[in-house]
Amino acid sequence: MDAATLAKDVIAGNRRALARAITLVESARPDHRAMATELMEHIKDADRQALRTGLSGTPGVGKSTLIESFGMMLIGKGMKVAVLAVDPSSARSGGSILGDKTRMEMLSREKNAFIRPSPSQSELGGVARRTREAVALCEAAGYDIILIETVGVGQSETVVSEMSDLFVLLLAPAGGDELQGVKRGIMEMADMILVNKADGDLLPAAKRTCSDYAGALRLIRKRPQDPEGFPKAMTVSALQEDGLAEAWDDMQALIAWRRENGFFDARRAEQAEYWFGQEIRLGLLGQLEREPLKSTVDDLARQVAQGAMTPTRAAADVLAALKEG
Amino acid sequence: MDAATLAKDVIAGNRRALARAITLVESARPDHRAMATELMEHIKDADRQALRTGLSGTPGVGKSTLIESFGMMLIGKGMKVAVLAVDPSSARSGGSILGDKTRMEMLSREKNAFIRPSPSQSELGGVARRTREAVALCEAAGYDIILIETVGVGQSETVVSEMSDLFVLLLAPAGGDELQGVKRGIMEMADMILVNKADGDLLPAAKRTCSDYAGALRLIRKRPQDPEGFPKAMTVSALQEDGLAEAWDDMQALIAWRRENGFFDARRAEQAEYWFGQEIRLGLLGQLEREPLKSTVDDLARQVAQGAMTPTRAAADVLAALKEG
Repeated sequence: MDAATLAKDVIAGNRRALARAITLVESARPDHRAMATELMEHIKDADRQALRTGLSGTPGVGKSTLIESFGMMLIGKGMKVAVLAVDPSSARSGGSILGDKTRMEMLSREKNAFIRPSPSQSELGGVARRTREAVALCEAAGYDIILIETVGVGQSETVVSEMSDLFVLLLAPAGGDELQGVKRGIMEMADMILVNKADGDLLPAAKRTCSDYAGALRLIRKRPQDPEGFPKAMTVSALQEDGLAEAWDDMQALIAWRRENGFFDARRAEQAEYWFGQEIRLGLLGQLEREPLKSTVDDLARQVAQGAMTPTRAAADVLAALKEG
Repeated sequence: MDAATLAKDVIAGNRRALARAITLVESARPDHRAMATELMEHIKDADRQALRTGLSGTPGVGKSTLIESFGMMLIGKGMKVAVLAVDPSSARSGGSILGDKTRMEMLSREKNAFIRPSPSQSELGGVARRTREAVALCEAAGYDIILIETVGVGQSETVVSEMSDLFVLLLAPAGGDELQGVKRGIMEMADMILVNKADGDLLPAAKRTCSDYAGALRLIRKRPQDPEGFPKAMTVSALQEDGLAEAWDDMQALIAWRRENGFFDARRAEQAEYWFGQEIRLGLLGQLEREPLKSTVDDLARQVAQGAMTPTRAAADVLAALKEG
């Protein structure tokens, strides 16, 4: 099948075509990459926009339960929901965090839901590129909301935030007054903080944690892209489906405000430029990992380590070889 | 003057030649870079090794006073001392942290001392490359110890640590029991922590801070390159010249142990490979900043931001242009 036909089938809403298209963009084979590049150009014709929502939370905060409940609620409203993941550790741990569809049992049976595990690559750059393209494919396929999940290891929040219109941080109720070691940089990315498990015994702790974070958010410099009251912290119970409708109302209000005030489009334009830069970097560095250059680089690295050659000269030789190659 | 002659003069210990050589490696002009690459190869002939000592500390901890006292002590022992700096902020703030030689008034008047401010570049990568080459030049010029100072902004400690045999973290006495917000990553880089200002009123606080850090260091996983008792925390007073001789004894003991056990050479080999990788990265990304490619990149970035082109296609076009160019 050629890229144009595959694009047409994806845009027509054919799920199998979508799955196949994502497999194509996940491949590192040069001929696949060439076809993927063409596919992504055709996909632009769909001219559709989904709400791209990043969701970060450490294991145990209830991400799967939240996605299941929240996703089912949106499907109940007649929406189409896609769930993707960015998890560079999945390649190492030998299984994706989303590999097991029983994690979201109800959602995975819905015809209006599309769930896709993280590409199994060990490099965050590779995972990021593939996921970004999968987001664009789901968008073209007519999904209304795309949830991009990450476990929050190292730089993965930044990567997810750079492909999201909206970034949600999911937390569990904390004991005491500590702020769960959430890094300031991640707090600054968040448009909304949801404190999950606000049910049963944990309700008081959830409320206290929420109020701690609401306080912490007030200390963060106001961003131009935020209307009054954002970023915001609120409690939810994914298990009891409490607070999810309110969270959705707030998300919609936030996005509507950003659209009206030009921040939505401006952010997408910035993100496209960011990914352009990333693609160039990945492409350049990728050449060093492939033959014929790889052997040259390895050989020169040995000479540099032995002190037989300066790093500067060896690098100059690599750059010259790159030009000839 | 050609690179071979300049190298010979540097190796002969000519200070003016050394200053000129460093100016050459700091230049970004392509013809200068070519000559610098050649110079660095000739410099290897000297086959000399200095003790490369990284020194990190935030403004106000007394770095200049320590370098002055410590440097004068070493000069008193008949050694030649070079002081370099890594400060990517110096370009922005309009002046180097080492620009004012009155900062180390006595040291700067010594014929056996060589003090050089940070290259004024705003990119850490550029500052790092230049400083690494300046370190090699000072080493070839016969300096026995090279102090590489950094104010510790962002990634600059990593960069300094990657060009040092020994990494020293300088701290001021802290009030109370907080650990001054020193990031764990920086603690893990340190071979020695010196708590300065252990004099007068601050002596008790300095001792307490030192003991807090000694405790924190014990919690860090033992590294193979450390003999018993390292990494180590101790108090010094740069002002009263207290503890400096002891610190120097410990530094020598540590380095002697690492040399005997192969860690010294292994680390230098690793570092050379690291800089080889960095040089390639800088070289590749540098091409994007220069014409004719720069205009192409800027033009494509505009199209990507406007949504007229996918990031993937635009990046592929840049990579193709790079190959042709």
